[in-house]
Amino acid sequence: MKIVIVGASGTMGQYLAKALEKENHEIIRASRSSTDVQVDTASTQSIEEMFAKIGAFDALISTAGPTFVGPWKNLTDQTFRIGMEGKMMGQINLVLIGQHYINPKGSFTLITGALTHEPQINFANASAANGAVEGFVRAASIELQNGIRINAVSPTVIENSPQYFPYFPGEIPTTMRQMEFGFKKSLFGAITGQIIKP
Amino acid sequence: MKIVIVGASGTMGQYLAKALEKENHEIIRASRSSTDVQVDTASTQSIEEMFAKIGAFDALISTAGPTFVGPWKNLTDQTFRIGMEGKMMGQINLVLIGQHYINPKGSFTLITGALTHEPQINFANASAANGAVEGFVRAASIELQNGIRINAVSPTVIENSPQYFPYFPGEIPTTMRQMEFGFKKSLFGAITGQIIKP
Repeated sequence: MKIVIVGASGTMGQYLAKALEKENHEIIRASRSSTDVQVDTASTQSIEEMFAKIGAFDALISTAGPTFVGPWKNLTDQTFRIGMEGKMMGQINLVLIGQHYINPKGSFTLITGALTHEPQINFANASAANGAVEGFVRAASIELQNGIRINAVSPTVIENSPQYFPYFPGEIPTTMRQMEFGFKKSLFGAITGQIIKP
Repeated sequence: MKIVIVGASGTMGQYLAKALEKENHEIIRASRSSTDVQVDTASTQSIEEMFAKIGAFDALISTAGPTFVGPWKNLTDQTFRIGMEGKMMGQINLVLIGQHYINPKGSFTLITGALTHEPQINFANASAANGAVEGFVRAASIELQNGIRINAVSPTVIENSPQYFPYFPGEIPTTMRQMEFGFKKSLFGAITGQIIKP
């Protein structure tokens, strides 16, 4: 399977790339600083250029989700747009544009997070961006043609980001292995329109 | 109670304004074409000016939710932004700015819709905007200070918009009276961070 990983230089992206490569899939690493293909998901032109370079593919995984994290008093129209352009429109545009390049029966798997339904102080921007992406995933699943599927993986705080643990009281961390299995459920299963809680 | 209704010239806004006025509340009608206070929720400056004119108030109701409705093939970064600026950032900015004007123990009640979880063809933009607003409502409810509450009302297709019925197969229409009760639950109850399905 030819799999594009957007956000490939991040912690999750690197882990997934290695795990899937071991199983003999062809991995295209895409990120702002990637060696395979560079992409800035905040730019539709950059996304178009990425897909033109890659050509047809079977699956796209996104782990790219910048949001504003910080005190509520600093949350304004301006800071809110970090998550809106990043985790939200960035991922939505990967699908709206990528649907014209992906093979029939291909799949998109985006990243959201428990914050959609389990808010934490400082993370309102992520809650909103996640909620948008999840609503979009359900809606896109009934619109995409040619058997193309779409799901999202929604982890809690990631086990190897211990610097975030204090901000997620009571939240059981998601292990990298759980997250890998969440993405595999979407990639190799038949489900669509689902929010996978790994 | 001094209640600001944003979207007051729309079907829902007009109905709510009359229903609440009958119960002797002071209603401030705000919309792009309103006689009380004009506001364009796509502009943070316009929102600021509205609140400066109105002064302190007890509750804000929003029924203002423009989104892109149309064929999936016409859904692009550009058309997606109709809902992002309209139903999503418009309502979120009403809260981010309005929190500095609202009285202690006041409430915000925004509008979302069943499309968040029950997608229909042509409405992916609304599904995403709703999802964002609902994630925001839950997150804002744990951040807002001084006993200020926030909820959303999430109707299905509205009974007096029969032109939309064909696009919502199997969806039992929400009556205006049910919707009124949904808003009253938020306004006069004590709940916060809830998505009310009237």
